[in-house]
Order: sequence, then structure tokens, then C-alpha cells
Amino acid sequence: MSSNDSLARLAAVIESRKPAHGGDPEASYVARLLHRGVDQVLKKVGEEAAEVVMAAKDAQHGGDRQKIVGEVADLWFHSMIALALFDLAPADVIAELERREGTSGIEEKALRKAQAREAGEQGAA
Amino acid sequence: MSSNDSLARLAAVIESRKPAHGGDPEASYVARLLHRGVDQVLKKVGEEAAEVVMAAKDAQHGGDRQKIVGEVADLWFHSMIALALFDLAPADVIAELERREGTSGIEEKALRKAQAREAGEQGAA
Amino acid sequence: MSSNDSLARLAAVIESRKPAHGGDPEASYVARLLHRGVDQVLKKVGEEAAEVVMAAKDAQHGGDRQKIVGEVADLWFHSMIALALFDLAPADVIAELERREGTSGIEEKALRKAQAREAGEQGAA
Amino acid sequence: MSSNDSLARLAAVIESRKPAHGGDPEASYVARLLHRGVDQVLKKVGEEAAEVVMAAKDAQHGGDRQKIVGEVADLWFHSMIALALFDLAPADVIAELERREGTSGIEEKALRKAQAREAGEQGAA
Repeated sequence: MSSNDSLARLAAVIESRKPAHGGDPEASYVARLLHRGVDQVLKKVGEEAAEVVMAAKDAQHGGDRQKIVGEVADLWFHSMIALALFDLAPADVIAELERREGTSGIEEKALRKAQAREAGEQGAA
Repeated sequence: MSSNDSLARLAAVIESRKPAHGGDPEASYVARLLHRGVDQVLKKVGEEAAEVVMAAKDAQHGGDRQKIVGEVADLWFHSMIALALFDLAPADVIAELERREGTSGIEEKALRKAQAREAGEQGAA
Repeated sequence: MSSNDSLARLAAVIESRKPAHGGDPEASYVARLLHRGVDQVLKKVGEEAAEVVMAAKDAQHGGDRQKIVGEVADLWFHSMIALALFDLAPADVIAELERREGTSGIEEKALRKAQAREAGEQGAA
Repeated sequence: MSSNDSLARLAAVIESRKPAHGGDPEASYVARLLHRGVDQVLKKVGEEAAEVVMAAKDAQHGGDRQKIVGEVADLWFHSMIALALFDLAPADVIAELERREGTSGIEEKALRKAQAREAGEQGAA
């Protein structure tokens, strides 16, 4: 498999860690998280999002940018485990991102919404 | 087109929205977020992580799984805007995920740590 | 006035903003959030948690500590709106905190769990 | 101390767990978290916010409301540890909430901002 499909390959590894596919919670971190279930995985998503925020703030104040990369990798990885719990895959996410890109006007709509919000914030200042 | 190519293309769009590249905050949602800065983008990361959690809980209780896909897409998209603020790209995240996959024993280490945590939780029950 | 009284008074204000009590979404921020429902309120909890994290990181790097106070106030306030949606109140949270304090050994249990986790992390280093 | 000041009393316990006040990371969960520092505490804030969201979604789908109380208690407790790291206390947060309540027009401003946002969202629908 080409290096272009690294997310798909990683998703296949996660898939192979499912109990139904012989994943062993005693031998694999992913098998263990899948075994512990939805809430454990979602807690990690919340925690990893906080770590992305912290790494970005540290970098903003002069810290190592590479830490952001590591934390976003953790966030995406745990998002992929959450997807796997619902028989979804990163390919679905990529397809959704492509669909939006292809839908003309999407960014303009998001912008209109954001501008209205900013107008409101200025009104409140 | 591979996942990596799609993410790279989306990253290029984000890059083109930077003020230095002529991105217009009045015409593009991404340009506007980049213009508003780090804190606005990180707030969105926190909010989108909460929405992933909500969509997964809804799906667990019988709701539409496709909502998870949309929320993970939002989370990844805003993560990419955060990366762009620090001149980083999804390719850096993919490389980090590949590096971990290639490092033997990584999953075993994460497992050992998680097992110790679980032992502690059972001790506390 | 005690902390508990202030929180109880604020909870009473939130309660009075419920649609059933005549709260007007066109005239009150709280009435409006209550009207928009669970997901809107929970999104705000996620966003405000991210803002607490950001304010604390800024303070750690020399920024104004008072910003943390403002963000924790926002987080607690939106938590209270979430409680109100389920007919719960800060008094329930205070009672739970008191109950834990009164239960001997609680902190020791949490400690044992945390130590096990740390042991695992050191093992993984 | 009266039961009306339970948050103040809890804050005093947290304060007594600081290393400078003889808190022992080997004997107390709070002392241990304070010892581990800002990032560990903020990670917990992110994780506990996710758990509030999960408990509320479970309750929305028929689960036990009392779980929300426990998770909000965890969130507030870890917020208080974060405050303590910066020599702040829940009394500061309560004072801020009272100050806002006393400032006429605060809710109207928040409302105006939120209405503008909603107008934008409807525009984008």
C-alpha cells in the first residue's frame, strides 16, 4: 500500500484490533480502548483536544511547534478509534471534507454566519 | 485520490487564505478565522471536540452515525486551521502517525501505561 | 453573602428564565440558550472549558491571572444552565462535593489510582 | 465554618495540599495533581468537561440525571485546583458572577450577540 494511504492503513490496524477480529485487550492499546467502549474513547477525545489547545498556546508563547503536531496526531488517532466504534473510517471524513469543498458557496455561508456573530460581538463590546 | 492528497489540497486552500497570501476576511470563512487569531481557532477546536462527543453519544443511543462523520470533519478541519497558524500541515501529522506506527513497541508502551491505570482504577473501586 | 447563597440566587435567575416560567428568548440570553436546548448548552461547556485552558496557559506565560477567573465563571455559569435543563441545581453539586469530603478515604482512593497511572507512564517513558 | 461556605472550605483543603504548605504527593490526590503542574490539571479540566457532556447526553436519552451532578462536581473540583495553581479561589469566581449579575444590561448584551449569531446561522441554512 502506498504511503498516500496512511490514514486508511492506520484505520485497518484499528479495525484489526476489534474484539470480533481477534484484537487482544491484554496485548494492544487500541484493542483495550475499543474493549472499554464509547465513553473511554470520548474522554480521550476531550483530553486530547485540551492538549492541542495547550500545545498551541505554548507555541504561541515561544514553545516548540512540533508539540502541536504530536497532539493533533493524538487527537486524530483517538477520533479514528471513535469512528471505528461506529464502523466508520477516516475515508468517510475525507469524503465529507471533499464534498464540502466541492459544494460551491459553502465557505461563503460559513462566512456570513461568522460575520453576523462578529457584528453581534461588536454590538456587545 | 488518496486521503493524504485530499488533506494536502485542503491545506493548500487554507494556506491561500492567509492574509500574507491575499486571503480576504470579508470573503472567506478560513481567512476570517486566520485573521481573528489563535484563541478563536482554539475555541472552535474545543467546541468541535464537544460536538464529536455529542454526535457519538446520540449514535450510541440510536441516532444517525453520519452526524459523527460531519463533526469529526469539522474537528479535523479546524485542527488544520490551527496547524496553518503555526506553519504546520496535515502532512506533518500524517508523518508523525507513520513514525509511531513504524516504531516497534509503541502500542505495547501505551498499553502498559493504560493497564497500570486500569489496575489503579480497580484498586479504587 | 456565602458562595452557596450566591450560586443559589444565580440558579434562581436561571430557573426563572425557563420557558415554563415565562422566560423570553427574545429578551434574555439564558432564556434563549434554554430554548435552544441541550446541544447548544453543551457546545458552550466545551468551548468555555477550552477558554479556561487558554487563560491558564496565558497566565502561566506571564498573562493576566484575572482572565482565568472570568473564564471559570463562564464555565460554571454554563454548567449551571446545563444543570437547569435537567432540573438540577448548584446545591446538588455542592452536596456532592460535601459528601465526598465527608467520605473518609476518598482522596486516598483517587491517589492510589493516580499513582498506578503514573507508574504506568514512567514504565512507558 | 458554616455549611454555607462549602466551596471556601474545599478551597482551603486544596490550599493546604500545596507543596509549600506541606502537601504530600504520596498521600493526597490533590497534592499530587498540584505537584504535577498546570498541564496535568488542565488536561483533567478538558476530560471532565467531556464527561459532563456525556452524562448530559445519557440523561437526555433516559439515563440517570445524578451522573450529571457527579461530573459537574468533578469539573468544578478540578477547576478549583486550576485556580489554586494561580493563587485564585472560588470566592473570586463567585465575586465575578455577582459582579456580572449586578451590572445591568449584561444579559441583554449577551443576548444581542447571540441573536446576531442565530441570524447568521439562519442566513446560512
